[in-house]
Amino acid sequence: MIILGIDPGLAIVGYGVIEAQKGAFRPIDCGVINTPKEDTVPVRLNKIYDGMLSLIERFKPDCIAIEELFFNTNITTGINVAQARGVVLLACQQKGLKMYEYTPLQIKQALTGYGKAEKKQIQFMVTRLLNLKAVPKPDDAADGLAVALTHGQTARLGGLFGIR
Amino acid sequence: MIILGIDPGLAIVGYGVIEAQKGAFRPIDCGVINTPKEDTVPVRLNKIYDGMLSLIERFKPDCIAIEELFFNTNITTGINVAQARGVVLLACQQKGLKMYEYTPLQIKQALTGYGKAEKKQIQFMVTRLLNLKAVPKPDDAADGLAVALTHGQTARLGGLFGIR
Repeated sequence: MIILGIDPGLAIVGYGVIEAQKGAFRPIDCGVINTPKEDTVPVRLNKIYDGMLSLIERFKPDCIAIEELFFNTNITTGINVAQARGVVLLACQQKGLKMYEYTPLQIKQALTGYGKAEKKQIQFMVTRLLNLKAVPKPDDAADGLAVALTHGQTARLGGLFGIR
Repeated sequence: MIILGIDPGLAIVGYGVIEAQKGAFRPIDCGVINTPKEDTVPVRLNKIYDGMLSLIERFKPDCIAIEELFFNTNITTGINVAQARGVVLLACQQKGLKMYEYTPLQIKQALTGYGKAEKKQIQFMVTRLLNLKAVPKPDDAADGLAVALTHGQTARLGGLFGIR
């Protein structure tokens, strides 16, 4: 099963692609879709949409795992993240992909067993579970891998969180 | 100039289409795109996207006026509204349309001259400016007309608020 994990954002969409087979995980790719802040929001949303279609075309994932949003600090940034996330969900829906969403808490628990784990602990587990030589850069790419791994772990344990 | 005004939402997208010419406004149509709550969010976003493309195809607007978002009450609803708004902006961008956004305050001021106007006063002004026999129903359709009229008034006065 090929899983495409997405960490949504307007300036940076992080992604990670893994193959999950018999409880083991193999890294395929990770990276980011960047959109320049000089562009208008609609232009940036269009770049994210095109970028998502390219990723789906290139990696032919079986499903998508995406971070669920929580707004607690910057509401203006939050609105733009949600607008970008809407476009990501649209692209995946149009390609007929199944989507699963995970809260930051679920990601932390799936990877470290501890809901208050710090970013470094998550990155350490991503690196270890995928037998990588170094922590993936930038952080958003590592976050994409983390949510993909969360889905891999969750699917293995039989509990799936589809998007309602 | 044909203006398509949009009041974004996940369950209901309100729209209003007007023609603005020499300071006068003519109503063309108004209504809503509904998405059933039984569907998943990605399916509903796809319906909004398709609905927007149909509206653009049908009315061939010169530009779009859309409400700017403010989150103050229900954050979960707010995330879904923003996701839907992202999809609306995407559809308009893909059709090469110019987009303008207005805050609720700007809409109230443009239509009534008073930033704290109530919904009924806005609806009264929409009905009057467009020489309608009754207040457009549902409220979301009237809100779509209100933001279209706001753009018409603003364009006439020379100050335009493009989406950054």
